[in-house]
Amino acid sequence: MNAYQPRTDDMAFILSDVLQAPARLQALPAFAEVDPDLMRQVLDEAGKFVGEVVAPLNRDGDEVGARWEAGAVTMPPGFRDAYQAFWQAGWPALACAVEDGGQGLPAVLEATLYEMLSAANHGWTMAPGLLHGAYECIKHHGSDALKARYLEKIATGEWLATMCLTEPHAGSDLGLCRSKAVPQSDGSYHLSGTKIFISGGEHDLSDNIVHLVLARLPDAPPGPKGLSLFLVPKVYANGHRSAVVCERIEEKMGLHGSPTCVMRFDEATGWIVGEPGRGLNAMFVMMNAARLHVALQGIGLLDAAWQKADAYSKERRQMRAPGARDTSVIAEHPAMRRILDTQRAWIDGGRVLAYRTAMELDLLKHHPDSARRDAAQRWCSLVTPVMKAAFSQQAFYGASECLQVFGGHGYVREWGIEQVLRDARIAMIYEGTNEIQAIDLLMRKVVGDQGRALGLLLDDLRADLPATSVARGMADALQTATTTLLARCASSVDHGHWVAGDYLRATTLVLLAWAWERIDAANPSQAPRWRRPLQALRAWVLPEFDMRLALLATPAQG
Amino acid sequence: MNAYQPRTDDMAFILSDVLQAPARLQALPAFAEVDPDLMRQVLDEAGKFVGEVVAPLNRDGDEVGARWEAGAVTMPPGFRDAYQAFWQAGWPALACAVEDGGQGLPAVLEATLYEMLSAANHGWTMAPGLLHGAYECIKHHGSDALKARYLEKIATGEWLATMCLTEPHAGSDLGLCRSKAVPQSDGSYHLSGTKIFISGGEHDLSDNIVHLVLARLPDAPPGPKGLSLFLVPKVYANGHRSAVVCERIEEKMGLHGSPTCVMRFDEATGWIVGEPGRGLNAMFVMMNAARLHVALQGIGLLDAAWQKADAYSKERRQMRAPGARDTSVIAEHPAMRRILDTQRAWIDGGRVLAYRTAMELDLLKHHPDSARRDAAQRWCSLVTPVMKAAFSQQAFYGASECLQVFGGHGYVREWGIEQVLRDARIAMIYEGTNEIQAIDLLMRKVVGDQGRALGLLLDDLRADLPATSVARGMADALQTATTTLLARCASSVDHGHWVAGDYLRATTLVLLAWAWERIDAANPSQAPRWRRPLQALRAWVLPEFDMRLALLATPAQG
Repeated sequence: MNAYQPRTDDMAFILSDVLQAPARLQALPAFAEVDPDLMRQVLDEAGKFVGEVVAPLNRDGDEVGARWEAGAVTMPPGFRDAYQAFWQAGWPALACAVEDGGQGLPAVLEATLYEMLSAANHGWTMAPGLLHGAYECIKHHGSDALKARYLEKIATGEWLATMCLTEPHAGSDLGLCRSKAVPQSDGSYHLSGTKIFISGGEHDLSDNIVHLVLARLPDAPPGPKGLSLFLVPKVYANGHRSAVVCERIEEKMGLHGSPTCVMRFDEATGWIVGEPGRGLNAMFVMMNAARLHVALQGIGLLDAAWQKADAYSKERRQMRAPGARDTSVIAEHPAMRRILDTQRAWIDGGRVLAYRTAMELDLLKHHPDSARRDAAQRWCSLVTPVMKAAFSQQAFYGASECLQVFGGHGYVREWGIEQVLRDARIAMIYEGTNEIQAIDLLMRKVVGDQGRALGLLLDDLRADLPATSVARGMADALQTATTTLLARCASSVDHGHWVAGDYLRATTLVLLAWAWERIDAANPSQAPRWRRPLQALRAWVLPEFDMRLALLATPAQG
Repeated sequence: MNAYQPRTDDMAFILSDVLQAPARLQALPAFAEVDPDLMRQVLDEAGKFVGEVVAPLNRDGDEVGARWEAGAVTMPPGFRDAYQAFWQAGWPALACAVEDGGQGLPAVLEATLYEMLSAANHGWTMAPGLLHGAYECIKHHGSDALKARYLEKIATGEWLATMCLTEPHAGSDLGLCRSKAVPQSDGSYHLSGTKIFISGGEHDLSDNIVHLVLARLPDAPPGPKGLSLFLVPKVYANGHRSAVVCERIEEKMGLHGSPTCVMRFDEATGWIVGEPGRGLNAMFVMMNAARLHVALQGIGLLDAAWQKADAYSKERRQMRAPGARDTSVIAEHPAMRRILDTQRAWIDGGRVLAYRTAMELDLLKHHPDSARRDAAQRWCSLVTPVMKAAFSQQAFYGASECLQVFGGHGYVREWGIEQVLRDARIAMIYEGTNEIQAIDLLMRKVVGDQGRALGLLLDDLRADLPATSVARGMADALQTATTTLLARCASSVDHGHWVAGDYLRATTLVLLAWAWERIDAANPSQAPRWRRPLQALRAWVLPEFDMRLALLATPAQG
């Protein structure tokens, strides 16, 4: 019922007191003028916009949804106006470079913005959610001509963007893509093929849509190395429509406010982005940014679910809680408190980790010291897949726990909690399924370098922790288990694939334990607001760690 | 896409080879004529009816749903015809006594029927799902007059029944109910009040609907002991409609094929069932039967999800599985095999436990030896809440795992897997939330008798297991942990409430381990069909047991 309200005080506490983000970022030349007051002001303005403009549209986004007719998509009531207000107020440009029309603010502020937006209205947020990745992609890989025409429009968000990867027979395995790009004498290409699951492939939010499309040149080898990236706009500079058609939109479990399009390219004129055969490389910038956004979606959606359940639990009276004399509000029942405090442990711990990751992106881009940039690169490379998988999963399962607080009312649409579950479920799948994230972490990034980067990451974490801390003990145990696992993987070709999910989960718990010890260190007052989730984390969440280590050593599967 | 197909061979294997149900039941005088061939024949006929008549209606049940207009509810296309065919073929009467118009078959056969029905079409199955409970309730607590008019109609299913418990301000805590029943000079009562979440409160499936309603007599004390049970039909013997109105139906996350009604009673004439102030007691018969049905729903829904995911995983090609030379079907990828084999471990283990529970209900009713009846009572009392909670939870979370097998296609309605999740979610809430089941198990049934019944149940399980078996070790560990927990609960008023869910989960895993050792003992051939789920159980499911025991010993929560 109650729309989500951004908790900017909590976010500011984590940014400033836990992560010292304002001081650390202001120390960089690029952000010399970004003082703590400015950061807080942006946070508060973002919270105001999200709470007042975007959150109220969430219910209609689900109930009315995006509608397709004859190739055109009409967005739910209020979506276009809110989007026009959003880009005109400069929000998409927040972390883009000033010379491209952006505001040059840190990525970490953009992270807080997207957490709030996703919590308020996941469907609406899908539209601008790909902008920053498209901006980076065009900035780093586009020709000067493409940049001149598209970069500022994308930076400001005046035009929206898509990522056209999946085809009917190519999901997680993009190497199976069949879309073709035929070179033309003027240096352009004609793109043909069908792409599916294209979020925002067609809509009425912006006057143009810029499609970034994976396709194959005529002489390309099979597999992923034959893929190149192309840019095809909905509307050309001469005002003509391109030969790109939205054939239909999918009927989905949730996220009805975001049209999931089947897009057909019929010899549509486009231009190559980056080198031939290096399409995945160019696209990778977008995909990595998108993965951190999915983690932020998860945190936001879980907060939205938590806020609803918390409010309900304080109003609803039921039978006596143990030790109470009379009927009690259900918030006092242990089973309900356990749910609420546990989810809060995930939310705040997730914020520490996601904002830290975003800050590492800032350091990676702007820190003068190459060793520090290496550390930032390491953090982002290892932590991003963990965050994507862990928080998309927690958003769905944690929202399901929050639904349980409502009893039968949780299953009824009126209260809005079931929408959170339906909307959240997709995040475990898109931008690489959670199974793919686990394989990326374990096989590519840990087995791939024999655990070297992971060891350095754990060293970084341990540097923050006293010798007797729980998180430190977990980090040590993960390192030992990694060594054992590496030896096992060396002799068994598929063992790592069986237990990659357990490895990702164990890593998640180490990171979460670290995050909460950072919160604890920043917060000596031990207010119940922070003490109870920490207690819940230790009591109910961290014990899973030993189980995951045990699972890593499971006997061979026949 | 593919509709569910009942796997009657698997069910028959578990009934006959694992549980020896036909032989054990035929040994009872009541079932002397129920030979194994007859049981198999009933199973096959049930599978045929469910697969051909009920399963094909599931999609429309979700998409069209039940529709309310001016107090009347129109069921989805085909629902009425299927229901008329169902009762006329004698299916609701399967386990009712011959003298009441039933067929006098064992409850265990009814259990297999309801598993199949729920798998095929959860929404449709809600309608007949309460019949058997209503039958038992009227049979044991109704006056001769009520029995004469209602018992056979309910036994045969010609008329359907409801359970009217919840009120807007009384959910899990029925003691807060405010509905009133005012005695009339002719021995009838006038019922007034509003009941919510009434499944099948109004519909067009049957010509009459029999409501069983909790309400308060004018002089009743507050709380649960002031509640009495009343019967109010939709239509009286004289053909007049009662003053019972369906005010609206809820818009829900799923289960659209079952109308969830708000029912208003305006001085509606009804009759008392059982003694004044003993309403909960009379209703309890219904609730207990309903809880086993919820477990069967869970098993069925999980099987429906598994069948879809299994079929998809064998068709869909993706990147190479580890060790493979070329692209592989995704069923060969370890992460996918782990999901599929693990869910199958839950399905088949669940069947062993649910059918065993149903068979214990048969023994409880018909066994000549009172010690055996005591053992049956013990089994049903302890195992029913475990099954309700464990399998409603597994249906939802396991179906979510199965959805993951589809990648992005799982989120699209077309494939039907997302409907399973939406439909299944309610089962964790209704018939007593899973949190209530855990408290029932631990506080009422284990702490309540200081673990005596639990110890005897574990003895029964151990009697089936060799000294070195994994399940036996787990049973021993649960007994030790129970002793420790009882001491802790004696000194801490609320500790048991914090960890009741973990206790239920640990008990679940002991039962599941026992069930699979029974399967294993019956199946020396070690066919992959049975070997792989057993291996998955041991590798991926049972390691949770140690974690749950550790959680039972968690420090006090402040």
